[in-house]
Amino acid sequence: MTAPLVTHLSSRDNPLLKELRKLSQDSTAYRKQGRVWLEGDHLCRAALARGRRPAMALFAESFWAEAQAEYAQAAIKTMVLPDVLFAELSGLESPARMGFVLDLPPQAEAGLTPGAAAVVLDRVQDAGNVGSILRSASAFGFTQVIALKGTAALWSAKVLRAGMGAHFGLRLVEGLGLPDLAPLGLPLLVTSSHGGSFLHRAELPWPCAWVMGHEGQGVSPALEAMAAQRIRIAQPGGEESLNVGAAAAICLHASASRQS
Amino acid sequence: MTAPLVTHLSSRDNPLLKELRKLSQDSTAYRKQGRVWLEGDHLCRAALARGRRPAMALFAESFWAEAQAEYAQAAIKTMVLPDVLFAELSGLESPARMGFVLDLPPQAEAGLTPGAAAVVLDRVQDAGNVGSILRSASAFGFTQVIALKGTAALWSAKVLRAGMGAHFGLRLVEGLGLPDLAPLGLPLLVTSSHGGSFLHRAELPWPCAWVMGHEGQGVSPALEAMAAQRIRIAQPGGEESLNVGAAAAICLHASASRQS
Repeated sequence: MTAPLVTHLSSRDNPLLKELRKLSQDSTAYRKQGRVWLEGDHLCRAALARGRRPAMALFAESFWAEAQAEYAQAAIKTMVLPDVLFAELSGLESPARMGFVLDLPPQAEAGLTPGAAAVVLDRVQDAGNVGSILRSASAFGFTQVIALKGTAALWSAKVLRAGMGAHFGLRLVEGLGLPDLAPLGLPLLVTSSHGGSFLHRAELPWPCAWVMGHEGQGVSPALEAMAAQRIRIAQPGGEESLNVGAAAAICLHASASRQS
Repeated sequence: MTAPLVTHLSSRDNPLLKELRKLSQDSTAYRKQGRVWLEGDHLCRAALARGRRPAMALFAESFWAEAQAEYAQAAIKTMVLPDVLFAELSGLESPARMGFVLDLPPQAEAGLTPGAAAVVLDRVQDAGNVGSILRSASAFGFTQVIALKGTAALWSAKVLRAGMGAHFGLRLVEGLGLPDLAPLGLPLLVTSSHGGSFLHRAELPWPCAWVMGHEGQGVSPALEAMAAQRIRIAQPGGEESLNVGAAAAICLHASASRQS
């Protein structure tokens, strides 16, 4: 095997570093650049485990000595930079000392897959909630997540961190409007705090698409009107509502456990 | 009814405002001060709805005119301050223009309640996760949450926001060690990614105490050894783990729905 090509960067004015800082710190820059920034060992390993080959791998100098045995061949290009420059690139309080730049997977730009079990996000705002829902979708056999306009940017650094690698096992489709859901061809299930069947007794169709709504406003009335079923989660404690990531977990798990 | 006593504050050097800034911005200052800062209409209403009477209510001047009809009698003392001073007090990017100071409810200092269905938090770190778990506990009829040493501060501003008022319906006990759990007198249920019965088929005791662990490391081995049952959540998608708030929601809902 030939020695890998490693470039050492040392100037903070390097145009590549400027672009990557934007990618790491601006939650929608990936849409213009067509690539995403993955920071930290866990996310980078998750991408590799799913067969993704990063366009670039970047390492802080202090980490490169121990990392090169494992990662020298991982990316098409490898770059090493002073720790202080890596820290500026980082979006984290404690920089992780390594990151990948991954070209956006082709499916992110493609449309939805008709008939494949899905989660539809209707303006879910919080990056932590979106990431948690991606993990639950992946865990419970839902193969695509469809984000309607107004939902947090799925490939932003915050959602990537909260997703803990779930991104790489899902088809992710963003920026759709309600009419774009027609080709999905699945019954839409909507959670409701006021009506519908109780989840733990309901007959759930499979495959299906669960719809999760805005943290404050829930699912929009227009989308609720398109639903095949309204489902309630029994809350004997009488609280007004669950966190949307919690509600999603309960619903997706219910669908999965009825199959087994 | 006599006119309520309203104090106008105008100096940022006012010693009370200094203390309240600390309360709002330092996540554990409530332990020293014995009181908490609730910011925003939703949290303040939730406290009132549970019969809590705040020691103080604070309003930004621009909001006071519209708020006084509703809130003039809500607190023991009412203070109005210039918007710029309220903004400095606020822990939010968009200050909510009103807040309450609530003396810590007596049960926060008391011990746990033997025999009452519980959630035990073993070093859960993320404020959003802790808040989501408090909401699920409250929704599913678990009346106390016991935070072991190393868990995020339950009454911090971030956990309060994520808890959306669930704090006021729960008994919250903090800072315990493992031996302190003995008086609980309930079977401990621990989630495991490797062993135990599958949740959707398991017989679940009631009342019980669900144990939720650290985001990266899970439940400590010493605590796992104390468990009456290990429970697995079937994950047909094969992901390595769920978000802890998601796992908690699934488990607590399962316990609640077996009772109905």
